[in-house]
Amino acid sequence: MDNHKLTELLKQVSEGRCSVEDAVTSLQHLPGETMGFACLDHHRQIRTGLPEVVYGENKSCEQIVMIMGQLLKHTGIALATRIDAAKAELVCRELPLLEYYGEARMLVGNPVSSDLGVGRGTILVIAAGTSDIPVAEEARVTAASLGHHVEQLYDVGVAGIHRLLAGYGQLRQAKVLVVVAGMEGALPSVVGGLVDRPVVAVPTSVGYGTGFGGIAALLGMLNSCTPGVAVVNIDNGFGAGCLAATINRI
Amino acid sequence: MDNHKLTELLKQVSEGRCSVEDAVTSLQHLPGETMGFACLDHHRQIRTGLPEVVYGENKSCEQIVMIMGQLLKHTGIALATRIDAAKAELVCRELPLLEYYGEARMLVGNPVSSDLGVGRGTILVIAAGTSDIPVAEEARVTAASLGHHVEQLYDVGVAGIHRLLAGYGQLRQAKVLVVVAGMEGALPSVVGGLVDRPVVAVPTSVGYGTGFGGIAALLGMLNSCTPGVAVVNIDNGFGAGCLAATINRI
Amino acid sequence: MDNHKLTELLKQVSEGRCSVEDAVTSLQHLPGETMGFACLDHHRQIRTGLPEVVYGENKSCEQIVMIMGQLLKHTGIALATRIDAAKAELVCRELPLLEYYGEARMLVGNPVSSDLGVGRGTILVIAAGTSDIPVAEEARVTAASLGHHVEQLYDVGVAGIHRLLAGYGQLRQAKVLVVVAGMEGALPSVVGGLVDRPVVAVPTSVGYGTGFGGIAALLGMLNSCTPGVAVVNIDNGFGAGCLAATINRI
Amino acid sequence: MDNHKLTELLKQVSEGRCSVEDAVTSLQHLPGETMGFACLDHHRQIRTGLPEVVYGENKSCEQIVMIMGQLLKHTGIALATRIDAAKAELVCRELPLLEYYGEARMLVGNPVSSDLGVGRGTILVIAAGTSDIPVAEEARVTAASLGHHVEQLYDVGVAGIHRLLAGYGQLRQAKVLVVVAGMEGALPSVVGGLVDRPVVAVPTSVGYGTGFGGIAALLGMLNSCTPGVAVVNIDNGFGAGCLAATINRI
Amino acid sequence: MDNHKLTELLKQVSEGRCSVEDAVTSLQHLPGETMGFACLDHHRQIRTGLPEVVYGENKSCEQIVMIMGQLLKHTGIALATRIDAAKAELVCRELPLLEYYGEARMLVGNPVSSDLGVGRGTILVIAAGTSDIPVAEEARVTAASLGHHVEQLYDVGVAGIHRLLAGYGQLRQAKVLVVVAGMEGALPSVVGGLVDRPVVAVPTSVGYGTGFGGIAALLGMLNSCTPGVAVVNIDNGFGAGCLAATINRI
Amino acid sequence: MDNHKLTELLKQVSEGRCSVEDAVTSLQHLPGETMGFACLDHHRQIRTGLPEVVYGENKSCEQIVMIMGQLLKHTGIALATRIDAAKAELVCRELPLLEYYGEARMLVGNPVSSDLGVGRGTILVIAAGTSDIPVAEEARVTAASLGHHVEQLYDVGVAGIHRLLAGYGQLRQAKVLVVVAGMEGALPSVVGGLVDRPVVAVPTSVGYGTGFGGIAALLGMLNSCTPGVAVVNIDNGFGAGCLAATINRI
Amino acid sequence: MDNHKLTELLKQVSEGRCSVEDAVTSLQHLPGETMGFACLDHHRQIRTGLPEVVYGENKSCEQIVMIMGQLLKHTGIALATRIDAAKAELVCRELPLLEYYGEARMLVGNPVSSDLGVGRGTILVIAAGTSDIPVAEEARVTAASLGHHVEQLYDVGVAGIHRLLAGYGQLRQAKVLVVVAGMEGALPSVVGGLVDRPVVAVPTSVGYGTGFGGIAALLGMLNSCTPGVAVVNIDNGFGAGCLAATINRI
Amino acid sequence: MDNHKLTELLKQVSEGRCSVEDAVTSLQHLPGETMGFACLDHHRQIRTGLPEVVYGENKSCEQIVMIMGQLLKHTGIALATRIDAAKAELVCRELPLLEYYGEARMLVGNPVSSDLGVGRGTILVIAAGTSDIPVAEEARVTAASLGHHVEQLYDVGVAGIHRLLAGYGQLRQAKVLVVVAGMEGALPSVVGGLVDRPVVAVPTSVGYGTGFGGIAALLGMLNSCTPGVAVVNIDNGFGAGCLAATINRI
Repeated sequence: MDNHKLTELLKQVSEGRCSVEDAVTSLQHLPGETMGFACLDHHRQIRTGLPEVVYGENKSCEQIVMIMGQLLKHTGIALATRIDAAKAELVCRELPLLEYYGEARMLVGNPVSSDLGVGRGTILVIAAGTSDIPVAEEARVTAASLGHHVEQLYDVGVAGIHRLLAGYGQLRQAKVLVVVAGMEGALPSVVGGLVDRPVVAVPTSVGYGTGFGGIAALLGMLNSCTPGVAVVNIDNGFGAGCLAATINRI
Repeated sequence: MDNHKLTELLKQVSEGRCSVEDAVTSLQHLPGETMGFACLDHHRQIRTGLPEVVYGENKSCEQIVMIMGQLLKHTGIALATRIDAAKAELVCRELPLLEYYGEARMLVGNPVSSDLGVGRGTILVIAAGTSDIPVAEEARVTAASLGHHVEQLYDVGVAGIHRLLAGYGQLRQAKVLVVVAGMEGALPSVVGGLVDRPVVAVPTSVGYGTGFGGIAALLGMLNSCTPGVAVVNIDNGFGAGCLAATINRI
Repeated sequence: MDNHKLTELLKQVSEGRCSVEDAVTSLQHLPGETMGFACLDHHRQIRTGLPEVVYGENKSCEQIVMIMGQLLKHTGIALATRIDAAKAELVCRELPLLEYYGEARMLVGNPVSSDLGVGRGTILVIAAGTSDIPVAEEARVTAASLGHHVEQLYDVGVAGIHRLLAGYGQLRQAKVLVVVAGMEGALPSVVGGLVDRPVVAVPTSVGYGTGFGGIAALLGMLNSCTPGVAVVNIDNGFGAGCLAATINRI
Repeated sequence: MDNHKLTELLKQVSEGRCSVEDAVTSLQHLPGETMGFACLDHHRQIRTGLPEVVYGENKSCEQIVMIMGQLLKHTGIALATRIDAAKAELVCRELPLLEYYGEARMLVGNPVSSDLGVGRGTILVIAAGTSDIPVAEEARVTAASLGHHVEQLYDVGVAGIHRLLAGYGQLRQAKVLVVVAGMEGALPSVVGGLVDRPVVAVPTSVGYGTGFGGIAALLGMLNSCTPGVAVVNIDNGFGAGCLAATINRI
Repeated sequence: MDNHKLTELLKQVSEGRCSVEDAVTSLQHLPGETMGFACLDHHRQIRTGLPEVVYGENKSCEQIVMIMGQLLKHTGIALATRIDAAKAELVCRELPLLEYYGEARMLVGNPVSSDLGVGRGTILVIAAGTSDIPVAEEARVTAASLGHHVEQLYDVGVAGIHRLLAGYGQLRQAKVLVVVAGMEGALPSVVGGLVDRPVVAVPTSVGYGTGFGGIAALLGMLNSCTPGVAVVNIDNGFGAGCLAATINRI
Repeated sequence: MDNHKLTELLKQVSEGRCSVEDAVTSLQHLPGETMGFACLDHHRQIRTGLPEVVYGENKSCEQIVMIMGQLLKHTGIALATRIDAAKAELVCRELPLLEYYGEARMLVGNPVSSDLGVGRGTILVIAAGTSDIPVAEEARVTAASLGHHVEQLYDVGVAGIHRLLAGYGQLRQAKVLVVVAGMEGALPSVVGGLVDRPVVAVPTSVGYGTGFGGIAALLGMLNSCTPGVAVVNIDNGFGAGCLAATINRI
Repeated sequence: MDNHKLTELLKQVSEGRCSVEDAVTSLQHLPGETMGFACLDHHRQIRTGLPEVVYGENKSCEQIVMIMGQLLKHTGIALATRIDAAKAELVCRELPLLEYYGEARMLVGNPVSSDLGVGRGTILVIAAGTSDIPVAEEARVTAASLGHHVEQLYDVGVAGIHRLLAGYGQLRQAKVLVVVAGMEGALPSVVGGLVDRPVVAVPTSVGYGTGFGGIAALLGMLNSCTPGVAVVNIDNGFGAGCLAATINRI
Repeated sequence: MDNHKLTELLKQVSEGRCSVEDAVTSLQHLPGETMGFACLDHHRQIRTGLPEVVYGENKSCEQIVMIMGQLLKHTGIALATRIDAAKAELVCRELPLLEYYGEARMLVGNPVSSDLGVGRGTILVIAAGTSDIPVAEEARVTAASLGHHVEQLYDVGVAGIHRLLAGYGQLRQAKVLVVVAGMEGALPSVVGGLVDRPVVAVPTSVGYGTGFGGIAALLGMLNSCTPGVAVVNIDNGFGAGCLAATINRI
């Protein structure tokens, strides 16, 4: 189609049936088509280094099976987030290649092997409280599935600052840090003040009342007195995992 | 440059120095460049039917003179919004071709003549209160400068509904209606219930307290019980004028 | 008790066992107690002209039966709002004196007879759309239960302004008007521009998206370009009924 | 004009030159015009009992002089709000009939005499703190200019509840109460619990931080645990004065 | 009734029983009634070109059957939105003329035939992601039911801009474009920069966290750097379809 | 481990195998580890005087049993909040030492005896309305479980100010006051104006519409015209109880 | 007056001119008056332990001189906040007894001597950054003027957690801690996790963008994962100083 | 001091005057002091790789001169942001070593030479519109001053998508991309879909009305449909520059 159209045009130029000037004009008036076939040849994963992900929240099992089946066939890796245990069981019956991570609520197929040396160093995922762990796990499983070495340090919130300081050595050895916190979201500020590596902050919807479903934590992170903290959307463990992977891949 | 590159490639194809297959591959790997030169040949005004506009709020006289001078040279029409009288006087000294519309706070150069028949019908600009007139005028001058026939109906707010009804005939004859209102922003709902034409609603920042600088009016318009009201940003008379012109040009 | 304490003190003064100066001092140091017994003698309904109401949303049938039973015994009139049909049936089994108004979702016992001439004129309850009727009915039943003559004019929203104008005569004859509207909440502005009587505006949570559960309507009413519109909380038909009754009782 | 058109039509009917059926049809097709002339004969003040007011905030002295001059000529009473002392002096030079009320920041011309017995009883304006007095005065001057008897009770905020209770007698004698408060806006709840008259609550922008320019006070008033409190926009003393006057006129 | 009253009055004028002056006065004092009968003769669909629609969200099957039955009888076309599959099945049993569109969640009866040539050109409905399709379908079915030719271009979000550019030709041929997007709502800006036709932007509630149920998308659209984008309420596919139809009908 | 590491280092110093200078350097480079073991020896309850609490909202019975079992073993006191009756029954079967407080929705194990004289005076918990009682009870049970003498004064909202004044004596005798209120949240202002003791204000989510789940009450408390009111998060009875206990322990 | 009225009534009782029953009735009907004189005898400072303060933001020098002159005469201590240096100089010329604290922007007259032993222990005022110092100083000067011993620990924000830990000893010795922070407001959480004393958190408006003038800090403090942090309004150093003083006075 | 204390303790251990057990205990009870001296030896720049920055907005010239003078002496590099031209001139008179960047509004002293090879690759700073350039420049100057190679690509907003695509090659060659945009903030989504490198998104306050000073752009970026976009605070070019530098340094 588009490919044919271009080939056809170039053949005409090649055979002298179309002047160079006319060909230039034609290409100028068809920018979309020109782009179109070009991009179809580039898979998203090659272009951005990140796979497409299935956001499972409001999708039926049938839809998930269909999309993930196609992803498995075409792109190698297949990821789905926000999948509860019941859905996961049904999907895995159809696609037994998929592995389910319960706390992360994710389905993973064909993960990239960590032996490939995709990443330069360790990604450390830190969670403030136990309720933040599902989001932290989403980040951890995402980065690990993309072939990175990931460690974790959970339940080290600022109300007992000694717990974090006890992990100081682990903090200093990571190449990228993902810090997950709800409530007042202060942990990334403290972590960012202790290390010289990129800190990816993930606010969670953990809390109540004026926590406003994660807004208090988000604002805390955006207004961090520590310069250079990277913030993603509330509960967006997947995005944080992708960002950490992208940084670690440099 | 880009143009040269493409011409060069096509010449090579034309002269047999490059195969059709290789040319296809080259074009596939250079989507940006391909787009680039193509688009540089298309002026924005030709592509979207709308000129670029200078948002004058925080620009100095020098900046405005420089940009509008270039617009006058290259695109025919030149528009600037949010220009106060003092700035206007200074700019017009340098660019005497420009005309200043005080209430609209706009500078206009090389407007499209309304004799060209750009628009199909009349655009009617309605303002709820006298304080809404500057925004209404911005819409009116914008559409008129683009070559449309524009009428106005001001100070017909819903607190005295008879004033609007007195203009019922004028309402029914318009092809597009721009309705400008601050405070509770109810006027578009009433107008939209009386006509079978597109209604473009513009909330203004007129009001105080819980008017929240136009948010009350904006929400009123977005939640109109009259289906199919088009809403633009607060105080965005220019955008409303453009939208009305685009509709009227069909 | 408190009453006894005061009587005892005054007896001591009367019998010369306590000097006037000491009695003054005593009363000065016991402001709470002094107030206390005084107020216990004044029933709320006598003091404010309004009965206590049972907000039924999160109360169990048992709680409602208990409280309304006591209200029936002590204050004459008993009102409960936000009672669904299932709860109402169960409560009425225990307290067969209560009458249930389904659309208003209210239970009423011992309403004040409208023959008593409590109100000076007619209260007119106006609703913009059919979805606003439950809130309008809450206002209507409240005012009627307090002994007022109430009329209704429903489904006269601003998207078809002729419907409201058709009721112009009814509007002009009312002594107080309660106007209930969701979505953009524009109706009170239009009504307020047509009459010389107090307009009580009730925003409802009817709508979706940027209606924000009634905030758009509330802001529309607070920013009405018609001066002197009285606004109550979102969905607060009961409060509007009370306010209208208080005004009409003057 | 419109009047002529209708008269002409009716003359034709009267003289048999137009059938009744045709006249009905004509009137059906001209709703706007029909309404138009009708309403032009009704001054706003006659229709709603309230005069138009000049909102002086962003108007120049020239504009104010022009509008108030016309109001003085045509409607008897002329009111302007949000007029600072400097503007007031300039305006009064041109229109010496106007009187300036400094605390209320209002200009008043041709006020309605309180001897006319417009109102049934006393309107009591209550202010929580001294900073709320300008808004309270705007309400007071508005109602007084419309011919009502108005009393005031200032600086009786809830932080020293005894000050309010000391005015209990004055509270009980008022027919309508306007309660003006900033900060937490709690005063209307307390007042409303003490009287059986309509309470008009006016939130003011007095406060800082989370007062959010009057939003805290507004929310306090809308959520009053005292049923039947009427709320107006932030700092809207004029609207409160109008509402109180409308109620007191019943 | 109203009709009778007017006819009666005109008869009296015709027969000399009422003077022209008295008739003028009568009509001046009865603006509502005058409007009333006039409007009753004008169906909404004739006045505004748009049918009434049944918002099905909180309505019972009985209510929907009753209202749609009447619409089918009186106005020709009958539309209902927000109808889930279960409700649809029950309603269709009673009204077998209705057709159900599952993705759009709409019931349609007596649609306008697209052969009638109601619209001037093609309406193109664009959706950013697959989750936005239900809202896009609501717009598509609405416009199609009103007799317009509608095409669709789905899953062309800005994260893979080449997908949109591949449809450039389709974009350029449409007369009106409806662009539906959730999350950051950036698609209308990009589309608006490529075409010279009216763009109707519909934010959807697709997203999570700081998407705030569509507010992020809405703000993105209102603040579009492309001038003249028309915005409607969140998830308001119906309104967008009506607006597009109104524009295309010009 | 850490403890071992430090002991080992000190032994080396003691035995001359490590110079003092090297030991200083080592400790300087391992701040986290140094802190770590130090803090592990300090229980949170000793460091802050407050026990850890189990927030039960989204935890399963199994999780609650496991955590509380450990708390009972290690820290003496065990507290859990937001436990409904059904969960409580299941947990108590496993841990029969726990006592359930239904209105407070709390589980308590090994409370501190009030005979120990932990507190200096009485903590008075005040609730505005009956719907605020669950939050008030959470505060009361928390403080009582920590060994304090707590009294209560419920249903004394500002709409009937005499009820509060009747308890004036009780107010004056308390050492710390916790004031719990929803809706407009005005009670702490009034209480704070009557006493010379610290007032801890707890906004509750009681209310509807513009109560915004407790925001109106929160803002009322933060903007109290009474200086020195301490505010905690919405519905945070536990935090208020802790704060009151901390103050009373001084 | 009121005092006279009561004395007169009691005299009549004493002299048998009024029966005990009639006196009881009289007192019951005059609750306001009864309270009124009682409270006039109690100075605010005696009732609440806190002086009235002059909020200087929008007051003229004349107003400040007048109010502070009266405070100096009647209540001993006189405080004014939000006074800039220029105002302070003018006021001090008239009232040379006043002392001006520039960083705190306060005027103080007749402070309570710290030798009186008003407080039990030390109040420690902590500031996160140098920009937070003005608010911290307002708290410090307030508490010191009320006779308390106050220490300070400034510039110890969480981005360099070691700075705070270096002051650990000072933290542990304070009886009450006031923690002042802008931006993400995380410092009170960390401090509260290190001490067993009441922590009063003061958000400041320091920051930009999504700091929203202190809202981010406020939310951070309200959602602290450390239980029992007391929060006051944004920039409310005075309120924090009062609260700390009230706690320290117990 | 602290250093002395530790040395002293270790000497005692070394000399047998203090047992190992006692030394362990001592260190456990002095966590703050232990940390304190340790951290004082680590400069912030060494610990986090980022220098302290002077936020110049509300600081006087004297303050800026004093702080930057100290920074120049002690840390090598000295940075100040939000410095207008007037302030800059005065400061540079005192500290002639500083260089002023007008568009970035920054003062820089002792920048790190880009010859040192601090960064691994090129940082590309992209700005959507000309009004976004000051924030983009703040990011650019920050990263460049820290020794990184930085390129720029300005005025490539999404309303003319071809401009961005024309720079496709430059996009693909960057190691880290900083994307600065106001209004709808859509540019990072598009850029992130084209590259496999980390994208740091900076919302700016450019816009008006519902742009809400950058909130619309911020939300657009947080809700990007492109996974893994890092977001910083509104107008926070400095933070973005730091983050990009930290990433590029890995």
